[in-house]
Amino acid sequence: MAVPPSTYPRRLLPLFLGLFQGALLLFFALFVTYDEPSAQAEDTNLVANQVYSTFPFFQDIQVMLVVGLGLLLTFLPRYGFSALTHNFLLLNFSMQWALVLQGLLQHFHHGQIHLDLHKLLISEFAAVTVLISVGAILGRASPCQLLVMATCEIPIYLASEWVIVTCLGVLDVGGTITIHVFSCYFGLGVSKALFRAAQQPLHPKETPTPSSDLMSLVGTLILWVFWPSFVAVLCQPGDAQHRAILNTLLAMSAGAITTVVASSLLERDGKLSLGHLQNGSLAGGVAIGVVADTAMPPVAALALGSLSAVVCVLGFRFLTPLLGRKLRLLDQCGIHNLHGLPGILGAAASILAVLLAPKDTAGSQPSQLSPAGGNASEVVEAQWGDRGVGGQALCQAAGLAVAAGASLLAGLLTGAALRLPCLARPPERLCFDDSLYFKIQDQAESPGPDSSAEEGALGLKEQV
Amino acid sequence: MAVPPSTYPRRLLPLFLGLFQGALLLFFALFVTYDEPSAQAEDTNLVANQVYSTFPFFQDIQVMLVVGLGLLLTFLPRYGFSALTHNFLLLNFSMQWALVLQGLLQHFHHGQIHLDLHKLLISEFAAVTVLISVGAILGRASPCQLLVMATCEIPIYLASEWVIVTCLGVLDVGGTITIHVFSCYFGLGVSKALFRAAQQPLHPKETPTPSSDLMSLVGTLILWVFWPSFVAVLCQPGDAQHRAILNTLLAMSAGAITTVVASSLLERDGKLSLGHLQNGSLAGGVAIGVVADTAMPPVAALALGSLSAVVCVLGFRFLTPLLGRKLRLLDQCGIHNLHGLPGILGAAASILAVLLAPKDTAGSQPSQLSPAGGNASEVVEAQWGDRGVGGQALCQAAGLAVAAGASLLAGLLTGAALRLPCLARPPERLCFDDSLYFKIQDQAESPGPDSSAEEGALGLKEQV
Amino acid sequence: MAVPPSTYPRRLLPLFLGLFQGALLLFFALFVTYDEPSAQAEDTNLVANQVYSTFPFFQDIQVMLVVGLGLLLTFLPRYGFSALTHNFLLLNFSMQWALVLQGLLQHFHHGQIHLDLHKLLISEFAAVTVLISVGAILGRASPCQLLVMATCEIPIYLASEWVIVTCLGVLDVGGTITIHVFSCYFGLGVSKALFRAAQQPLHPKETPTPSSDLMSLVGTLILWVFWPSFVAVLCQPGDAQHRAILNTLLAMSAGAITTVVASSLLERDGKLSLGHLQNGSLAGGVAIGVVADTAMPPVAALALGSLSAVVCVLGFRFLTPLLGRKLRLLDQCGIHNLHGLPGILGAAASILAVLLAPKDTAGSQPSQLSPAGGNASEVVEAQWGDRGVGGQALCQAAGLAVAAGASLLAGLLTGAALRLPCLARPPERLCFDDSLYFKIQDQAESPGPDSSAEEGALGLKEQV
Repeated sequence: MAVPPSTYPRRLLPLFLGLFQGALLLFFALFVTYDEPSAQAEDTNLVANQVYSTFPFFQDIQVMLVVGLGLLLTFLPRYGFSALTHNFLLLNFSMQWALVLQGLLQHFHHGQIHLDLHKLLISEFAAVTVLISVGAILGRASPCQLLVMATCEIPIYLASEWVIVTCLGVLDVGGTITIHVFSCYFGLGVSKALFRAAQQPLHPKETPTPSSDLMSLVGTLILWVFWPSFVAVLCQPGDAQHRAILNTLLAMSAGAITTVVASSLLERDGKLSLGHLQNGSLAGGVAIGVVADTAMPPVAALALGSLSAVVCVLGFRFLTPLLGRKLRLLDQCGIHNLHGLPGILGAAASILAVLLAPKDTAGSQPSQLSPAGGNASEVVEAQWGDRGVGGQALCQAAGLAVAAGASLLAGLLTGAALRLPCLARPPERLCFDDSLYFKIQDQAESPGPDSSAEEGALGLKEQV
Repeated sequence: MAVPPSTYPRRLLPLFLGLFQGALLLFFALFVTYDEPSAQAEDTNLVANQVYSTFPFFQDIQVMLVVGLGLLLTFLPRYGFSALTHNFLLLNFSMQWALVLQGLLQHFHHGQIHLDLHKLLISEFAAVTVLISVGAILGRASPCQLLVMATCEIPIYLASEWVIVTCLGVLDVGGTITIHVFSCYFGLGVSKALFRAAQQPLHPKETPTPSSDLMSLVGTLILWVFWPSFVAVLCQPGDAQHRAILNTLLAMSAGAITTVVASSLLERDGKLSLGHLQNGSLAGGVAIGVVADTAMPPVAALALGSLSAVVCVLGFRFLTPLLGRKLRLLDQCGIHNLHGLPGILGAAASILAVLLAPKDTAGSQPSQLSPAGGNASEVVEAQWGDRGVGGQALCQAAGLAVAAGASLLAGLLTGAALRLPCLARPPERLCFDDSLYFKIQDQAESPGPDSSAEEGALGLKEQV
Repeated sequence: MAVPPSTYPRRLLPLFLGLFQGALLLFFALFVTYDEPSAQAEDTNLVANQVYSTFPFFQDIQVMLVVGLGLLLTFLPRYGFSALTHNFLLLNFSMQWALVLQGLLQHFHHGQIHLDLHKLLISEFAAVTVLISVGAILGRASPCQLLVMATCEIPIYLASEWVIVTCLGVLDVGGTITIHVFSCYFGLGVSKALFRAAQQPLHPKETPTPSSDLMSLVGTLILWVFWPSFVAVLCQPGDAQHRAILNTLLAMSAGAITTVVASSLLERDGKLSLGHLQNGSLAGGVAIGVVADTAMPPVAALALGSLSAVVCVLGFRFLTPLLGRKLRLLDQCGIHNLHGLPGILGAAASILAVLLAPKDTAGSQPSQLSPAGGNASEVVEAQWGDRGVGGQALCQAAGLAVAAGASLLAGLLTGAALRLPCLARPPERLCFDDSLYFKIQDQAESPGPDSSAEEGALGLKEQV
């Protein structure tokens, strides 16, 4: 089962990444600097307080993306190294790429770009879109394909986020529309264009083993725990952030219980499906993001969390097989169920929240909401003042349409580009297999991921 | 080895949980709201500071309960999904149930219930009791039984906590008496009444494998790291909280080393037992809770931590087998050794601490202590002022007696109720087995938790 | 394969640890106390703020050391319990031992020792040196040997840190020179003196399995996420700390990508090596520590991170085999590649940073830098004022020489002492095997780490 060296252009990955790192160094050398040190003690305290109020949230999000999401993706039993490493690599690559693009786009006309923790955080949010989209094609795409996908997705995300938040004034503090819906349909577009008419049979390496499913469940739990930090980090400190944390906690708690209910009702013999648990428990967090800091009553958060979990589990049970049959759409991790459907639900809830918002808070609400773009809040306030409640509701709907439509189109184009032969899509029989990308001791014997050390050593001897 | 569908009433679990979620939604819709947004910038800063001072602790505790405790319980090699999932489900269920009951009991006469992070935290503490009690019957009870147990335990805990903290004025900032001792004897009572005269032989699936023991050890380490947050979160900010963190760190550090000493001395050939390490390392944290913020010297924290570890390891080595033989008491995770004995030790230490407290701090001490109940601090201060040192020491002893006695009685009654046939206790041969509750790919073949994907696929084909 | 009881002096470990705990209790009883409670509300707020600004960093570092580093060391497939437990034990032992020594050395002439979170943190930093040095001899040394090593290393570290930071005024906020370089050469010295001329062939239990490598990779990711907290915790709050966080994030991000590039270029077929990923991703964090809070441009952090990763991967590929052949030096975890080479690189960068520092910040810089020793900052400021830029650069070089030279010498002496027969170095065939130190169920059969529960139970029955 030795991989013929000719099937895979081994030097493309280091070449691509090496050139990127070189260009990044050049860009930073020319344009990026830190803020001047504060001259006065008062300013020093201000900076210190900003660090203390942002950094714990930032670390929580890093844990989510690097450890939690990484582990969640290790459900493919022979693809654990690839899942963790590609996720880690893409996070760093996309974050740096977003940093460059945001620097060029937003700040270039001010001369030097002043780097701070907030800008890194915004870039990290952009990187999240790539990590989500990858879920659609996990295990069937080469790292080069994933990097090219990231290269395309980040600028499209930044453009789409600019349209949605800055132009349309959509309120979306937790990134439900701008991040989750966008990245879901982008990923599905890529998957459709990349795999086209292929309706593959179940790959033998695609089935999770108990130990890989356990790792994946641990990843879900880590994501579940830290999700409130992801939703609340960009909120206005004070009441809005407090509400965002509480709403997210309620939605995720209700979602966890409802997932068990829904999975148990849908599966044979009332048994639970691990796929449902791994995804449904998080659906509430996806949906709540768009309305987390609004002045809606707590019951709405509970209801939204429950409904998202139901929709997610129903999606896994019925919609994914249907899309596979009718549209021949591959969605390896079920991102449409975890990010697409709950994202749409959340967008619908935000329209409802705008329409039902009490009159006296409608005026003060925008000032409590901090759109992901940060510097667009004054625009929003002015616009909602002008456009009225109905206008804002329309804008939320328009934002959803842009996020879903533009990303699907862009994803289809990107997926077509990924078919370039030089990007080395792995052949079907080598999908879902770490041994294509990693030097693994006992790959000659392929005795499964849990062969004992003796077997490994024997395999090694026979190989040498 | 297919499970006959008739043995297990599959629809009870979703029915129960579904009705509960419905009732919760109704309750929230009628009675629960958030605080009004702060009108002034000063108030906003206050809320922001409260979030920054509480939320990191809250997240630490969530990691402990969801990831740390969940992993600790995965030492049963074929019960990992159930351990993680039931722990997660019970945390969410109990937290919501405690939220409802506390809302009704404490806040109903004020009209609307104003939800905030502190109330969620208090509910989470209530949920901890359920997660601990489950340890006594882990692997032998159905999820329905666990949920009914949680339904009974939460109100009894709230009543007991009210008696101990509010009426008796017991000082117990880390929940040693109110949470650990209470939940231990409640769990043992349930176990005794549920399994009665049964002295089961060792179940073949009960023996940990190296890989399940490793996961469990990682869980212990996560709990060990974050334990100071659990003890200190409800302390008065400032010196008391600083002391609570330091005392807990010292006790846990001494406990870790002493566990190695004790285990090595007690085991054959001086080898270490993983069960001792997994539990003994945490015993110091259980015991220190009740005195963590008092003005005792640092050496007392070290001594208490060491002593707790010794007591815990001795309990595993001698007391658990004895209780099994004499009282026919099943204690699957050894909660009596980790929560019962160190809890009693901590209570004794608190009596000593009260008696030995220097005169000049005896007056100021209560104001630095924030009992778990929160709003009872004035009561406590007044009472200690009246009752004197001896009276306070008596109260600590009375609190311990209430926590142990009432919970044992309530546990026995609850355990008797769990014998109801409709709750579907799993038959002996299906205990400790995920396949009863989870859709697992290779259950037909049951080739162990580490069968390779190919075997699983084959098993699946043969099954279909 | 039963271990003959005579080969291992089982009572030495508990005796040693027990005596140490007893002595610690005595020391604490005589000399250690907490600060007096603050009398005024203002002081209480000050203490509270100190807790909130330090404790989250402290917890992050605890997670790194206990969970992250512990998991990183579990790459030896049959040595997971030992790796986790010995790491945990050594952390606690070394931290307490450093607490005692620092108490005696620095604070004794003030009478009572006042314990606070900052002193615990400093002791934890001292303990890190032991945890790093262990990497050189992991799997081949008994716990008693490791404890004796820790007993020797901590006082030598404290002396070396005093010379480097207080006497020489070296700037090293992240411990690159004082911790990483020091502990690396100490560990290599111990390894050389302990194993002398032995050039062992590859031990069959030394080869990682996929599942042990996966755990180790998760450990790397946890370390990667929390590394900024380690580097920044001792910085001056405000701009310096903000810069330290940003520089570390940039260096680690660049290091992660460069590791992939370097590993892919060096390995056959362009595949990635897990050893490279597990270590190279962290090399940037080692190197950046010494300059993290200086006023260098962001591009320098990126460049340093990339360069460190390259050096680390090259070290694994070429230098470690060379040292093994020429110097017969065993370096089990490759600490020379992760801590030695990047540490030297960081020291060189710090010389460059001092030389190139802009004139106008050269005067104000020292006040923004908080050397690890804490109370030495005034000394530093005065010295740099006197010694000028060239003098400071020389001091940085001298610090590096002291850290590498003194530690190598001390390590050689310590390693010679570890050859004492009573310390029970395990025989070659029992290296890398948990069953020497842990009561493991199925050790009689030794069916590998993943035998199913049934096999374990059978093995147990046959054994009894």
